[in-house]
Amino acid sequence: MKKLINAVDHVITEQLEGMALAHPELKISLDPKYIARADAPLTDKVAVISGGGSGHEPMHGGFVGVGMLAAACPGEVFTSPTPDQMYAAAHAVAGTAGVLFVVKNYTGDVLNFETAAEMVHDDGIKVQNVLVDDDVAVKDSLYTAGRRGVGTTVILEKVVGAAAEAGYDLDQCAELARRVNSYGRSLGMALTSCTVPAVGKPTFTLGADEIEIGIGIHGEPGQYRTTMKTADEITTTLVNAILDDGEYRRMLREWDRGNAMWIEREVIDTPLVAGDEVIALVNSMGGTPQSELYAVYRKLAALCQSRGIRILRSLVGAYITSLEMQGVSITLVKTDSEILSMWDAPVKTPALRWGF
Amino acid sequence: MKKLINAVDHVITEQLEGMALAHPELKISLDPKYIARADAPLTDKVAVISGGGSGHEPMHGGFVGVGMLAAACPGEVFTSPTPDQMYAAAHAVAGTAGVLFVVKNYTGDVLNFETAAEMVHDDGIKVQNVLVDDDVAVKDSLYTAGRRGVGTTVILEKVVGAAAEAGYDLDQCAELARRVNSYGRSLGMALTSCTVPAVGKPTFTLGADEIEIGIGIHGEPGQYRTTMKTADEITTTLVNAILDDGEYRRMLREWDRGNAMWIEREVIDTPLVAGDEVIALVNSMGGTPQSELYAVYRKLAALCQSRGIRILRSLVGAYITSLEMQGVSITLVKTDSEILSMWDAPVKTPALRWGF
Repeated sequence: MKKLINAVDHVITEQLEGMALAHPELKISLDPKYIARADAPLTDKVAVISGGGSGHEPMHGGFVGVGMLAAACPGEVFTSPTPDQMYAAAHAVAGTAGVLFVVKNYTGDVLNFETAAEMVHDDGIKVQNVLVDDDVAVKDSLYTAGRRGVGTTVILEKVVGAAAEAGYDLDQCAELARRVNSYGRSLGMALTSCTVPAVGKPTFTLGADEIEIGIGIHGEPGQYRTTMKTADEITTTLVNAILDDGEYRRMLREWDRGNAMWIEREVIDTPLVAGDEVIALVNSMGGTPQSELYAVYRKLAALCQSRGIRILRSLVGAYITSLEMQGVSITLVKTDSEILSMWDAPVKTPALRWGF
Repeated sequence: MKKLINAVDHVITEQLEGMALAHPELKISLDPKYIARADAPLTDKVAVISGGGSGHEPMHGGFVGVGMLAAACPGEVFTSPTPDQMYAAAHAVAGTAGVLFVVKNYTGDVLNFETAAEMVHDDGIKVQNVLVDDDVAVKDSLYTAGRRGVGTTVILEKVVGAAAEAGYDLDQCAELARRVNSYGRSLGMALTSCTVPAVGKPTFTLGADEIEIGIGIHGEPGQYRTTMKTADEITTTLVNAILDDGEYRRMLREWDRGNAMWIEREVIDTPLVAGDEVIALVNSMGGTPQSELYAVYRKLAALCQSRGIRILRSLVGAYITSLEMQGVSITLVKTDSEILSMWDAPVKTPALRWGF
């Protein structure tokens, strides 16, 4: 294993120390671990907080800043953060408008963020959890019940962070977040595996002419393996799966603040159809160069045009990664005038910045 | 070779087509190939133009936009662009204030940009060439006479692009560019090689426990190979080489517009010393994740502090790459109030953006 690390046990701590030194606009706590806006606590704005396993940088820590996340909680590599991290982060940043936890749909993350929400609620802080489950690869994988949360997270955190900055209240932020999630669909593929530092060898092995379609961001098994294809063929496979994805039914869990309990209701995500306008993300899994992402974007744009889908905004780069994995994921999020204006609003974070 | 490409012969064209679709604020010509600001030609501001082999993305195309480059000329992978590209780019963007060509010190680039300067001059456009030669690894390598141009290019293009935007004339821009170059020093290392698409196999081979210090951005041989070290040890090696680097004498070639000839004078770059203030770049060679760069930055910050060097600004990410190569380079550029204010000025490009 060749990585720019010191001791395996100190990987996250040392990365956070470096991040703190490089970004004085962030306040980074090492025990428990969280990354927060240095100007927190917020006074009267909703604090949007996310988190998850490390190894997906810049997500989530690189999205902390004005107009996006108030705080992020990094777990160990590919491992959920713990409720005490989320609880401490919430107390560090929350003002009177409460806390919105943005949770990717992995069992550990869901459980720990729900525990944290209950703890925060007990302290009298308004709280709500929203889930991201946008990966069309699998409905049930080895790691999770239901779809995994992947690329839509990036777009959701930008949009809802802007809404919080604009003064939306907690319920409005939660409603918007759920809409963005229901509008988002993603699919990823790997050319190579990655190596988790504590494991020291690749999570999986692909042959010299082999690729995997539908991988998760933690190296979860994909839908299938196939031989190497051209960029156009790979992009067509990913985009067709996203655009041909039908209705998706799932249970939405919501924190009922009045009765201090979780309530569930069934929701149905509707497919993308001709006439829809989208924000498109072409995302490197970590080790794929920017130039190859543009080759993918080229075909994505042509496919969307041929299907009557209009790309209004795009993001091409490494935003939700799996360490040094080579590969690409594509995310399309249907947009409307409200989502679009929140996307365009100013943001100032290490990884996404405009308007400042 | 597993890459997200179609035919090897179309790699650059298709990447440019994707880039054009993703960035409507750019105007991209495919024959000859150049990337320009869509709002060009500039009227009364100096057009800063750069270029070089492809494979280093986002450099240079990702730096085209308001406050940085007016245009960039991409060659084939790791191959100099041709004079006709530079000539066409200059005509596409130049206003009355003329053209500054920013050239990394590789024999082909230097020769072709000098030819282009003569062609542009013959058309009555004011022109000047400035060289970047900041790599302390080697004074003479397989590919070039003198030091290679690496990470300082990123900082120089930002600073001089801001100066052009602020209304500096051509000679002022050239003087500032030469000062930034004389203030900049870099060193890089590789954990892995990269694979040039047209070649189809890795440029060099490193063992499972082997790294190379002092590599160039085209896979040029480095100073030496050694066994795998910790992030702290690797960072210390790079930073010490940069800070211990002494005076560097070289010939500076300048276009004498009055006499239409190249003139040379000897210049001496002075070392970085305690009390200096710097802009620091920790750069991924392409395949190294953001998290590992922060581990390197952590040690870089400590080493600079212990040597009395104050880091005023930093940039941590993939800015000047070698395709999917894993590894890191460090660049320190001494700064002064003028350079710092130009660094902080607004910039709006695909890869660097603030103030917009």
